[in-house]
Amino acid sequence: MSDQITIALDAMGGDSAPQIVVAGANIARRRHPDVKFILYGDADEVSALVARQRGLDEFVEVRHADERVQPDDKPSQIVRSGKETSMWKAIEAVRDGDADGVVSAGNTGALLAMAMLILKRLEGIDRPAIASFFPTLRGETVMLDLGANIQCDARNLVEFSIMGEVFARTILGVQDPTIGLLNVGEEETKGNDALRDAANLLQDLDLPGEFVGFVEGDDIPAGAVDVVVTDGFTGNVALKTAEGTAKLLNAFIKETFRNSFWAKIGYIFAKRSFDKLRSRSDPRRYNGAMFLGLNGVCVKSHGGTDAVGFATAIGVAIDMIKYDGNALLKSNIERLDPDILRPQVASAAAS
Amino acid sequence: MSDQITIALDAMGGDSAPQIVVAGANIARRRHPDVKFILYGDADEVSALVARQRGLDEFVEVRHADERVQPDDKPSQIVRSGKETSMWKAIEAVRDGDADGVVSAGNTGALLAMAMLILKRLEGIDRPAIASFFPTLRGETVMLDLGANIQCDARNLVEFSIMGEVFARTILGVQDPTIGLLNVGEEETKGNDALRDAANLLQDLDLPGEFVGFVEGDDIPAGAVDVVVTDGFTGNVALKTAEGTAKLLNAFIKETFRNSFWAKIGYIFAKRSFDKLRSRSDPRRYNGAMFLGLNGVCVKSHGGTDAVGFATAIGVAIDMIKYDGNALLKSNIERLDPDILRPQVASAAAS
Repeated sequence: MSDQITIALDAMGGDSAPQIVVAGANIARRRHPDVKFILYGDADEVSALVARQRGLDEFVEVRHADERVQPDDKPSQIVRSGKETSMWKAIEAVRDGDADGVVSAGNTGALLAMAMLILKRLEGIDRPAIASFFPTLRGETVMLDLGANIQCDARNLVEFSIMGEVFARTILGVQDPTIGLLNVGEEETKGNDALRDAANLLQDLDLPGEFVGFVEGDDIPAGAVDVVVTDGFTGNVALKTAEGTAKLLNAFIKETFRNSFWAKIGYIFAKRSFDKLRSRSDPRRYNGAMFLGLNGVCVKSHGGTDAVGFATAIGVAIDMIKYDGNALLKSNIERLDPDILRPQVASAAAS
Repeated sequence: MSDQITIALDAMGGDSAPQIVVAGANIARRRHPDVKFILYGDADEVSALVARQRGLDEFVEVRHADERVQPDDKPSQIVRSGKETSMWKAIEAVRDGDADGVVSAGNTGALLAMAMLILKRLEGIDRPAIASFFPTLRGETVMLDLGANIQCDARNLVEFSIMGEVFARTILGVQDPTIGLLNVGEEETKGNDALRDAANLLQDLDLPGEFVGFVEGDDIPAGAVDVVVTDGFTGNVALKTAEGTAKLLNAFIKETFRNSFWAKIGYIFAKRSFDKLRSRSDPRRYNGAMFLGLNGVCVKSHGGTDAVGFATAIGVAIDMIKYDGNALLKSNIERLDPDILRPQVASAAAS
């Protein structure tokens, strides 16, 4: 690959699109001067926004798309009629080699369905998964799947573990990441068959990263492992519960600083430190969920983010491309004999 | 029932038993002067502790038990050999009518297994569940199941919803509690068959409380509903993730107040308000998980709690007894024709 990286952006996806997409691209091109963008969307509207960001026009090409995916469109509708949308065209740019990766802040279900259809799964991957990372007591932790697969068997969980290991290595820069399977207890007898079988496989197979066994819900924010592996139902609930709890506590803290004269005075003194804390746990710093296991880099930005957050999501795509995450993933998956894995799972389940 | 309430206590269960159990009973008898206790455990040790709490001896009877359940005993071992333990004898006191309820801070799996065996399920209940309550943005919310049932069908979820509604009414004093089913999205098509079938049943059946549909992880700390219904795997992960996230943020706040001279000054002014916040979200105020769906009141205290927390768990048992939660639960379950529910689930699953 040449040093030049090109990212396709769905300019029309997200609550404040196309404004935040264009402004986000402008922030990202300052952070990553070796990157160019192809913006898909309403050409007149997008070009006018690009013209307003001084110097951005050198780094972008605008390509017209007539349609956009709506937030409440169902994946089935979109796959039938969505070929004229900015999202579809942006993903196609990756398949056709015009871009190295794609970022969208649009409808998650639509993006996942289209990306599966256009980019296809990486060879050896049964089920692509959504991975993201967030702050913990010890640094940062990757979790997957966050909602692409509601029910998972042992093989899926083993694949997620391989994919999550690569993601932690590539995005967080962790050497030999530790991996834990999310369960309701650390004892080997806990959980369901899929979890116990996956734990046996991960212990027996010689895979990259260090499998430490089962972890529990409180181990996620504690940062007990670098990669938390779980099915998409549990992962989605756990991530949203953690986000909601953080919001709840922030609301409590705000109220606490307001609830007396002396507390207000205290806030004046402590404000700078609290601003730092806010910046440290700023969700915009953790924006960008990766669809792992596809023939191409596809990153989903939060729909409600601003330009700074969107630039972070672009950064996730750039890191995956720059450090060739998908090539590493492919070679790690190839270390698994796919014909061996299936019967092992079956025999483990039968025993 | 006479006004006199008797609670059996497993004096030997918990990290700091029997000290915190005896001290907890002493706090509880001041809060609830109409309650008496039977303490099961090493009679010499427990009696000596009781003698040290002035005035407590009038309210307690000590009954000897030779053995105690160890924290790492497996449920299967205990059920075979545990009849001489303080936990077993305390539960038996409820079955035999000597006590109206039992509280233990011992091994959760053992307590659940013994309680199922000794007290048996309430008629009409297929699967008892663990319920607890915690602070949210709007007040307090009940969640169940927290780990008794790893996999659940639609009928189990409907039963949990009936049990959770009674628990919210009895413990939180909420009139007509709102109920939500935990899922990965609010749309009717989200989740698995069990969730969709349970949602249809809860919409169609005329049950107490107000079923509002699906809720997501962030709705739990937001307090979007009074009762969150989920399977024991997801509930356990969500509760522990929320607890861990709260711990993470408390650690961040502590660090923030320490990280500069000015922040330390600020803390001096704001300390009183932060003490109030700490007391408001004090886990000891939310101690006491109820095993719902049994012929008797059985409450599990956190094993690591102190006397204040143990007294809260005793309070949960007292409220369930005083407001006759199990009688309400029984009459609500009887409103369900058990023969109707099964086929409905089957046909919903087949459609």
